[in-house]
Amino acid sequence: MSYYQLGVVKRHIVRADRAAVEKLSRFGVATIHEAMGRVGLMKNYMRPIYTGAHVCGTAVTVLLQPGDNWMMHVAAEQLQTGDVVVAACTTDNEDGFFGDLLATSFRARGALGLIIDGGVRDVKDLTEMDFPVFSRAVNAKGTIKATLGSVNIPIVCAGAYVTPGDVIVADDDGVVCVPKAIAQKTLEAAIKRESFEGEKRDKLASGVLGLDMYKMREPLAAAGLKYID
Amino acid sequence: MSYYQLGVVKRHIVRADRAAVEKLSRFGVATIHEAMGRVGLMKNYMRPIYTGAHVCGTAVTVLLQPGDNWMMHVAAEQLQTGDVVVAACTTDNEDGFFGDLLATSFRARGALGLIIDGGVRDVKDLTEMDFPVFSRAVNAKGTIKATLGSVNIPIVCAGAYVTPGDVIVADDDGVVCVPKAIAQKTLEAAIKRESFEGEKRDKLASGVLGLDMYKMREPLAAAGLKYID
Amino acid sequence: MSYYQLGVVKRHIVRADRAAVEKLSRFGVATIHEAMGRVGLMKNYMRPIYTGAHVCGTAVTVLLQPGDNWMMHVAAEQLQTGDVVVAACTTDNEDGFFGDLLATSFRARGALGLIIDGGVRDVKDLTEMDFPVFSRAVNAKGTIKATLGSVNIPIVCAGAYVTPGDVIVADDDGVVCVPKAIAQKTLEAAIKRESFEGEKRDKLASGVLGLDMYKMREPLAAAGLKYID
Amino acid sequence: MSYYQLGVVKRHIVRADRAAVEKLSRFGVATIHEAMGRVGLMKNYMRPIYTGAHVCGTAVTVLLQPGDNWMMHVAAEQLQTGDVVVAACTTDNEDGFFGDLLATSFRARGALGLIIDGGVRDVKDLTEMDFPVFSRAVNAKGTIKATLGSVNIPIVCAGAYVTPGDVIVADDDGVVCVPKAIAQKTLEAAIKRESFEGEKRDKLASGVLGLDMYKMREPLAAAGLKYID
Amino acid sequence: MSYYQLGVVKRHIVRADRAAVEKLSRFGVATIHEAMGRVGLMKNYMRPIYTGAHVCGTAVTVLLQPGDNWMMHVAAEQLQTGDVVVAACTTDNEDGFFGDLLATSFRARGALGLIIDGGVRDVKDLTEMDFPVFSRAVNAKGTIKATLGSVNIPIVCAGAYVTPGDVIVADDDGVVCVPKAIAQKTLEAAIKRESFEGEKRDKLASGVLGLDMYKMREPLAAAGLKYID
Amino acid sequence: MSYYQLGVVKRHIVRADRAAVEKLSRFGVATIHEAMGRVGLMKNYMRPIYTGAHVCGTAVTVLLQPGDNWMMHVAAEQLQTGDVVVAACTTDNEDGFFGDLLATSFRARGALGLIIDGGVRDVKDLTEMDFPVFSRAVNAKGTIKATLGSVNIPIVCAGAYVTPGDVIVADDDGVVCVPKAIAQKTLEAAIKRESFEGEKRDKLASGVLGLDMYKMREPLAAAGLKYID
Repeated sequence: MSYYQLGVVKRHIVRADRAAVEKLSRFGVATIHEAMGRVGLMKNYMRPIYTGAHVCGTAVTVLLQPGDNWMMHVAAEQLQTGDVVVAACTTDNEDGFFGDLLATSFRARGALGLIIDGGVRDVKDLTEMDFPVFSRAVNAKGTIKATLGSVNIPIVCAGAYVTPGDVIVADDDGVVCVPKAIAQKTLEAAIKRESFEGEKRDKLASGVLGLDMYKMREPLAAAGLKYID
Repeated sequence: MSYYQLGVVKRHIVRADRAAVEKLSRFGVATIHEAMGRVGLMKNYMRPIYTGAHVCGTAVTVLLQPGDNWMMHVAAEQLQTGDVVVAACTTDNEDGFFGDLLATSFRARGALGLIIDGGVRDVKDLTEMDFPVFSRAVNAKGTIKATLGSVNIPIVCAGAYVTPGDVIVADDDGVVCVPKAIAQKTLEAAIKRESFEGEKRDKLASGVLGLDMYKMREPLAAAGLKYID
Repeated sequence: MSYYQLGVVKRHIVRADRAAVEKLSRFGVATIHEAMGRVGLMKNYMRPIYTGAHVCGTAVTVLLQPGDNWMMHVAAEQLQTGDVVVAACTTDNEDGFFGDLLATSFRARGALGLIIDGGVRDVKDLTEMDFPVFSRAVNAKGTIKATLGSVNIPIVCAGAYVTPGDVIVADDDGVVCVPKAIAQKTLEAAIKRESFEGEKRDKLASGVLGLDMYKMREPLAAAGLKYID
Repeated sequence: MSYYQLGVVKRHIVRADRAAVEKLSRFGVATIHEAMGRVGLMKNYMRPIYTGAHVCGTAVTVLLQPGDNWMMHVAAEQLQTGDVVVAACTTDNEDGFFGDLLATSFRARGALGLIIDGGVRDVKDLTEMDFPVFSRAVNAKGTIKATLGSVNIPIVCAGAYVTPGDVIVADDDGVVCVPKAIAQKTLEAAIKRESFEGEKRDKLASGVLGLDMYKMREPLAAAGLKYID
Repeated sequence: MSYYQLGVVKRHIVRADRAAVEKLSRFGVATIHEAMGRVGLMKNYMRPIYTGAHVCGTAVTVLLQPGDNWMMHVAAEQLQTGDVVVAACTTDNEDGFFGDLLATSFRARGALGLIIDGGVRDVKDLTEMDFPVFSRAVNAKGTIKATLGSVNIPIVCAGAYVTPGDVIVADDDGVVCVPKAIAQKTLEAAIKRESFEGEKRDKLASGVLGLDMYKMREPLAAAGLKYID
Repeated sequence: MSYYQLGVVKRHIVRADRAAVEKLSRFGVATIHEAMGRVGLMKNYMRPIYTGAHVCGTAVTVLLQPGDNWMMHVAAEQLQTGDVVVAACTTDNEDGFFGDLLATSFRARGALGLIIDGGVRDVKDLTEMDFPVFSRAVNAKGTIKATLGSVNIPIVCAGAYVTPGDVIVADDDGVVCVPKAIAQKTLEAAIKRESFEGEKRDKLASGVLGLDMYKMREPLAAAGLKYID
């Protein structure tokens, strides 16, 4: 299964380790992205359709054609509990590929949410269902079912390369993809990173400056920073 | 009265049938757009200024000049109960053409809401008034009153052609214009479309796949879809 | 200290009069912008990260480099109670320059909020802290600390020229900068402007038309407006 | 034939008067737009694919579906000598709907050029053919032939309402649509407008100021303009 | 070497077969993209800096940091005759990462051109050198050399996934990436596709309609197309 | 005269030293921007209306109102030989504020070109006149003459702060503003910077790597760069 192979559905994919996924779900997108070495984010035009939406699961990927959501139905059959559907399109298109009926179907098959580099509709219903969706746009525009794309091939979604089974985490700050091969390592780095946060926050709250806490004064002076009255 | 005739106000317009408008107000924008044959939507950059905003009424149209909201005051006099003001501009301009004072005046004259391919301000007040506005932008930038546009001529608003008296429906999914000549027909199609939704939703919720419910497996195979392990 | 001088921090700045700032905080951005003669606004892509965010204070300015938030830490030390940090970048960049740790530090030093022509992250935490941020984008993308910018030099932020100590007011309608030299005069104009609003609102609510209240009928006729049946 | 009726082709359309069209072709888009009362322009994202492209003819309209250029072939059969194809899409889509083969076919049928609110490709070939195209984008992305749109219905193209048979003029400054009903009147206004241009240009070239030539000093003073040393 | 691994340079990469690359260079981007099954294109915001720019070669990839072009110098050492540098950034950034000095160096090392999802400068010099560059932007903004990215790792450039050694073809229509594993197969499909073009063009030029040549009348009727007088 | 004071024209402004301006005109925008410390650029959406446009002169500033070019005529009277008009607008507006008649007038008064954060028209004529214009957009949309802006006040144009009399340089790479106070210093830095370019170019052309010429290998290793086979 190669990148952008059209007209295929891969039935058996290797999903990231369930335990690692669950542990990663406790971390924010910003923390995970830092733990990966400041990479892995989708473009920041991907926004939750309602405030507070959050999802963490394993990617089932979909490659759509413009104005056509046929492959979303094909993808539904490949879903397992804990999956997140990640949908890209072969071109820039903001039509409403997804609404409350597909959300009902996806949830019945075990899916936790949707990440789509396209448009969605029925946002009021999706919000009431508390079905987390992160999309490029909201758009009432309907789609047809006429042209083949693919399911469970590697895709590029909103600038990020996603392989089926990768870990997807999304919250108010954006969407990050953790390749399954580094899920455990990323988890460990995230835990370590977060362990220092409480102490730092307390210090800063007490009025200690980052300049001192992070020992920045010397490098700033070395870089030539000048203070003037 | 022709499209883009400047400096005129049409006093008597034919509004869509009141009963049809009221019945259409129960349907979502996505459903109505589908019922029309997947047409009639404004561009999806038109967004509600607060979550949950909804409006359905008959269009009183306004053609504005950039940075100038004079015609909004002229339009106020033409309003009747159940109208929705639909405002376009002769060029792309996101100035704040509308605020709480005009909303107060529009409401006093019977208007239900505003659709504007431009900017609005006082969004906090408008939200407290629960006055539904769908706009291209929020912008504190004020306007002047110096150049003539028109009221109740056919206009193009956010990509949609709107004739005075047409039905306008707007919700979280976007804005649709139903030409008054097809309001009744659209209503019937919407009713029919929605009548199947409950049953479909129940089936999908029980785990039935769209692939089976919509009998897609055969056409997918005919199109050449391949399943791989 | 001139515009865009890099590598400097000005320690002593003249802040706008505290009493005028406090009085200005009671007015909306649209009103203040009108009181200044319809100028002073930042671009309308600057949006609050949560509905209802509001801030009014004196500007401590920061000039950032792309992908680098070093100067934010330098700025923290220059903050006094009642300040608002106003951050621009030497190029268009939407990385996440700011999050909950910096917010904690800024608040501990007396800052009331942040205006940034760039991205921010940890928006859930910032919302819970009720720390008002107006930004160009939300973005989980992290930054480094490697290149000098400046603190407390005049900057251009989102199209507005901001001098350290100027008054910054931001609400749901946008962000305005009131030069400290005209803070008092602007306040007076705002008070005067607002004093007429209540009466106008009552009249409009009673059904009086703006056409009559503002005596527009004659100038409209002079401009050539035609009424047609 | 109404606006946005899908699945239809109108064979007999009323074209603007040939003589008027030919005379209009001598005027620039800016002049014609002014002659119409400063209306009629398409959005300024519509750009020629090569410098110096120019076209003036009668509109044959096409409504496309996203990623689908089937209707372009249907339109070819409806072309007559002197026509310009004007193509819009039911949604925002920049796929490459048009290339050198279709240009060859359109030209063979008498078409003079293409205006398309979408993408085109083979721009090198089109440039060599000197086939004028004004589009929203250049894009190598191919399209399919699967879904019906319409030919020769009224459409909205790049913000302008175009009826089959209207006059379309396009040059380096943009694209304007002159409704056939006002083609003659617009022509006369353009002739009148242009008749003054040479004299004005000579005066300005000699150093006379617009302030004096247009007698602006008095209205400027009345508006309150102040000169300071 | 995995996708988005920072701080590494891969010295030995497998380049696509030289003979296939040379043969592919005779085809346009649109043809190659069709030959691949309508996939592989970069976003259409990637434009040549001068009309007529064309390049075909094997990819040496670079991952840049915002405002930092250090890795471009590192990449220069890895170039071989026939390479094309393909540069992406860890975030959206349009700074001028590349100018005439780097072009001189790249050319001296054998590179044929540059594809960059960022900005470039010195476009006059680059044009005089006839050094083909396809970029997201032109921007005089300079960059620093402070933070590590990578060279010759798989990257996502303007929406396309590019592996070191893949074939890159760029012309006035856009940029396409042909994975080296399918270069030969793509070449054969392109040859086949193009072999029919001349005959088609002749037929269309003689006035034969695509409707007849492609036998579209029956499927159009089956789809429900109606002709009206 | 303060920033954004409306309704005023300053007659006597201090222009940058003529000799320095003339010497600066020999340098490219990228070089000057680097010589200033990598600051001073306008946004990179400012583009020449024809390839090869170049201008260097002293700024006469104009603040326009949306859809209104009245102040352009007022500015004409303030022009002296060697000036460049720099025009901003109180809001984002891409109307065609400028065409060949104004260019004729400006040239007759000694102006060398125009920088405008707005639209222009008559680009064919302007190109034939070889009148350099750098603008945000090309747009046939006409404007009115009804509302006061200002002439020769400090303005923000495309993100850059411009004071009357500053040096403006524009070429294919963009537009830079050199404050008159640092024109001489910037000139010296530009001369110094350029003096090394020839030697560098020769070395790079001979195959020497920037890695060696700039002695980057050690800092790269220190930063942790790893080479892999």
